[in-house]
Amino acid sequence: MPREDSQSADEAAIRSVINGITKAVRAKDVEAFLSHCAPDIVAFDMLPPLEQEGAETIRRNWDTALSSFEGTVEYEVRKLAITAGGDAAFSRCLAFFGGTTKDGKRIVNWLRLTLGFRRIDGQWKVIHQHVSVPFDMENGKAILDLKP
Amino acid sequence: MPREDSQSADEAAIRSVINGITKAVRAKDVEAFLSHCAPDIVAFDMLPPLEQEGAETIRRNWDTALSSFEGTVEYEVRKLAITAGGDAAFSRCLAFFGGTTKDGKRIVNWLRLTLGFRRIDGQWKVIHQHVSVPFDMENGKAILDLKP
Repeated sequence: MPREDSQSADEAAIRSVINGITKAVRAKDVEAFLSHCAPDIVAFDMLPPLEQEGAETIRRNWDTALSSFEGTVEYEVRKLAITAGGDAAFSRCLAFFGGTTKDGKRIVNWLRLTLGFRRIDGQWKVIHQHVSVPFDMENGKAILDLKP
Repeated sequence: MPREDSQSADEAAIRSVINGITKAVRAKDVEAFLSHCAPDIVAFDMLPPLEQEGAETIRRNWDTALSSFEGTVEYEVRKLAITAGGDAAFSRCLAFFGGTTKDGKRIVNWLRLTLGFRRIDGQWKVIHQHVSVPFDMENGKAILDLKP
């Protein structure tokens, strides 16, 4: 394929992985989420520690986070940009994440999400994830109510 | 070049860009930093807003941030991992960032840093930057004293 066609095919394939992740998060299906990740994924998450290494660690943390919600989780990706070339790619987007917890609290916020991909055996897998919110320098608090 | 050789050459080139950024941050040289960035860079920074678009915005914010320090800035990259393939690449690392402000405060913290690169006219340029610290779910505060 000419280079432009192969790039846009890669971008479409990665967009489809991100759609799969979106469905998995909404359904609180951690295994479906992890099916898009490499076993040695390293995540920089909103919550400590500084870094989380390996799919097993992420399985545990996502199980805890997602199971705290009652019913489905609301998840929406906005302003997605994908850069693909050869066997490496990355994406950035803003993501709306939220729902109602089992103890009745309504939690919603806009996150910044960066994903790093590698093509492994013909499939694009997430090998790096970075999710965050900014914080307020004055009071040291994470800012959870910013809107894009 | 065989694919492995070209990948490791790309990784070396990106490592050299990251070394250049390290020197620029230490010297508080915003122009040297920006020389490694594409004009349409999009940054997810530690401080609001959710996203910063364009080199000009980043110039302004970095000028403010770096000029608040007295003398040089301490900056050190740890656990750097680079994934390169074709004309896209990304890196992740932990970065120690700090110094003494002009009003005598000592500020140091470990950040998580993800960079997204595109090869433009043969040069690797940063087109995306994501810097963050995690936060404490209990008290809502950004956690600035985590160590790798």
